[in-house]
Amino acid sequence: MLGIVVEYNPFHNGHLYHLTKAKRICNPDFTVAVMSGSFTQRGEPAIIDKFARTEIALLCGVDLVLELPTIYAIQDAGGFAFGAISSLAATQVVTDVVFGSESADLENLEKIAKVLVEQPPLYLRFLHEELKRGHSFPNARRIAIMRYATSEKVFDPSTLKIIERSNDILGLEYIVSAKKLGLSTRFHVVKRVGADYHDEGFKGTFSSATAIRNLIRRNEMEQVRHALPQESFSILRREMKVGRGPVFYEDMEKLIMGVFRTITRYDLQEYAGFNEGLDRRFTFYAVRSGTLQELLEAVKAKRFTFSRLRRLSIYPILQIKKDLVEESNSKGPQYLRILGFNERGRELLHQMKKVCAVPLITNASNYISVAKEATRKDRFREFDSVLFKRQFELDVRATNLHSLYFSNTEDRSYERDMRLGPVTPSHP
Amino acid sequence: MLGIVVEYNPFHNGHLYHLTKAKRICNPDFTVAVMSGSFTQRGEPAIIDKFARTEIALLCGVDLVLELPTIYAIQDAGGFAFGAISSLAATQVVTDVVFGSESADLENLEKIAKVLVEQPPLYLRFLHEELKRGHSFPNARRIAIMRYATSEKVFDPSTLKIIERSNDILGLEYIVSAKKLGLSTRFHVVKRVGADYHDEGFKGTFSSATAIRNLIRRNEMEQVRHALPQESFSILRREMKVGRGPVFYEDMEKLIMGVFRTITRYDLQEYAGFNEGLDRRFTFYAVRSGTLQELLEAVKAKRFTFSRLRRLSIYPILQIKKDLVEESNSKGPQYLRILGFNERGRELLHQMKKVCAVPLITNASNYISVAKEATRKDRFREFDSVLFKRQFELDVRATNLHSLYFSNTEDRSYERDMRLGPVTPSHP
Repeated sequence: MLGIVVEYNPFHNGHLYHLTKAKRICNPDFTVAVMSGSFTQRGEPAIIDKFARTEIALLCGVDLVLELPTIYAIQDAGGFAFGAISSLAATQVVTDVVFGSESADLENLEKIAKVLVEQPPLYLRFLHEELKRGHSFPNARRIAIMRYATSEKVFDPSTLKIIERSNDILGLEYIVSAKKLGLSTRFHVVKRVGADYHDEGFKGTFSSATAIRNLIRRNEMEQVRHALPQESFSILRREMKVGRGPVFYEDMEKLIMGVFRTITRYDLQEYAGFNEGLDRRFTFYAVRSGTLQELLEAVKAKRFTFSRLRRLSIYPILQIKKDLVEESNSKGPQYLRILGFNERGRELLHQMKKVCAVPLITNASNYISVAKEATRKDRFREFDSVLFKRQFELDVRATNLHSLYFSNTEDRSYERDMRLGPVTPSHP
Repeated sequence: MLGIVVEYNPFHNGHLYHLTKAKRICNPDFTVAVMSGSFTQRGEPAIIDKFARTEIALLCGVDLVLELPTIYAIQDAGGFAFGAISSLAATQVVTDVVFGSESADLENLEKIAKVLVEQPPLYLRFLHEELKRGHSFPNARRIAIMRYATSEKVFDPSTLKIIERSNDILGLEYIVSAKKLGLSTRFHVVKRVGADYHDEGFKGTFSSATAIRNLIRRNEMEQVRHALPQESFSILRREMKVGRGPVFYEDMEKLIMGVFRTITRYDLQEYAGFNEGLDRRFTFYAVRSGTLQELLEAVKAKRFTFSRLRRLSIYPILQIKKDLVEESNSKGPQYLRILGFNERGRELLHQMKKVCAVPLITNASNYISVAKEATRKDRFREFDSVLFKRQFELDVRATNLHSLYFSNTEDRSYERDMRLGPVTPSHP
């Protein structure tokens, strides 16, 4: 059984290439994707609705789409990976995970992951030294590993450039999470293809999701068409036509700046991630910046990435508080939300229902009774109904906030999470 | 010494008429206006900046403009009037207050005010009965007074229609506040003139501020020109030209709806006024409404006015909490913020400095040291420096939020409250 972790924002030729390759590697009976919902790891609202992105995924060869709870989707690589791998593990049916990788050097990723999980004393010493020097945690960690590798000769330190690129970093975190959770998941990699790379039978160009979103922003839809599988393009265009997107981070300028102009530093400290002076930086610069871009540039310092700042900028709005992140990162996701499935996915769901480690949410509107039932079941011994509620209500808030930016006011007020059941390709 | 309470949103021919008449009645040595700052009693952002509105007021004949602290400006008639009358009283130099009135029936307003302040037992019984019947407080009060008048024959109950119109209602509250504060302020009324009313020497038409704001929204500036004194029109047009307005309530749609879509009922209850089920109504309908107008219409019930709902919709954004309103309504404004003055106003300020009952804030950027100094002065025995800080920082937040809606991004980031000193007509 194949599991993949995706955002599909939007689904493009590179995603289709990855999916096809992954299937070729594992030859799975079923393919499950855990997908970001209304917000992504870059701290942005998804360009189109999670239900439309589910529909595309199903049409392009995924059998079952689960929502990565927002509390993980909008975290750094570590939190994102922990949520995604925990979700796939909670299905109790996923055996293999394939991820995209710039290096495709699984062997060294596994070795590095081992050090990160086992934390030998020498590595910890290096890590503390680098943190003291003022490096951000990811950087300190990278340097500490490099020094450890040089000193212990576990692996060639030159291979460490593999943890400088985003897919490798995520892949490493998947392996780390699996090791920490004691999973026996088999990992495989698909080498990432760059722009304009042509592979057996793949037509069209390979553009990054970021480049494609920029084309959409400029309404250069003919160029978008070349970068997307036909199913993805036509659903994207349909959504745009009815006024359900595209949604951009910049659309939220007034909301984000309005919040930072009116909240106090002290209230801000309740939300996750506002440490290292970021509480002061955000409130100080919010009143001294004319645009959202100016604000982020003013807040930015060497040790922060723009992705991190964008994610943080959404936390006070979505009410993502410190303790919710901490608890979620220790206890894991408390549910699997089914966003959609095809006929094969339906079969898989039947299997999963009997074995999965957390309750399934099929229709979101009855989530309260799902929680109640789960507390009564022996199988869900570690189920935390309060955390379940907090995690799931965050997903709902995120979707309600996302849909506020639809130009179609009817869809804005549709409460999509509560009213839409799982997507199935027969009635999209 | 004449005191008036104004919003000047924007300053129109009716305001000039009122000001001229008021001066004719009192023949004052000086005229002081206490003016709403960045938000008004209708719960809307002021159409242009408070500094520009101050400039207009000075050019049109006011000598000194004080800011009505936001905590009062954005309250119902009772809270608004209490803040305004307390501010005028705190100057210790204002002897006469003139207000606009539809009825111009000062005698009966005084009689009604007396009942409201003295609260005879029979009146209280009627009031409780009417509240029990489900009337809103203002309506219950009006009916109770009418019943009391009929029963006690204090005044002809037919005169009670005078407290059905907005200026009379405000005027009544001014008198009530003055009585409660034990002031010897003399009140006078100027009969409000309707549209197209022509008085000795007044040219142009009399349109309501609401009608004028609608004209500005539709950019029908030639019609606006006829309704405004020349100074007001040219400054309004200048502000619009440089991109500092017009600012409308509807511009804040995404911010207001975003907040109500993501806040919980329980967090909402911390803010003032979210009782009578309004916490639930706002959060429930926020996700089920496509526009701000739809939201207000859905939340609206017979017992709420739209002005009240608009004011409430701003409270969570400006962090207006229950205890801040309560404390402010018992202790009064803790400062007088000088927005601007002409040469005569400068003279008046010299006098005021020696006698005023609360500290003066001339340059906002040193408000912390103003508070520190005030705690050391015997004259300010009842000064509350914590409340001072909370009230004043709300004014700053309100201005920073208001300026976010300027199209000119430089002015958006200018921190106007901190950087602009009092307006004087010589260097506007």
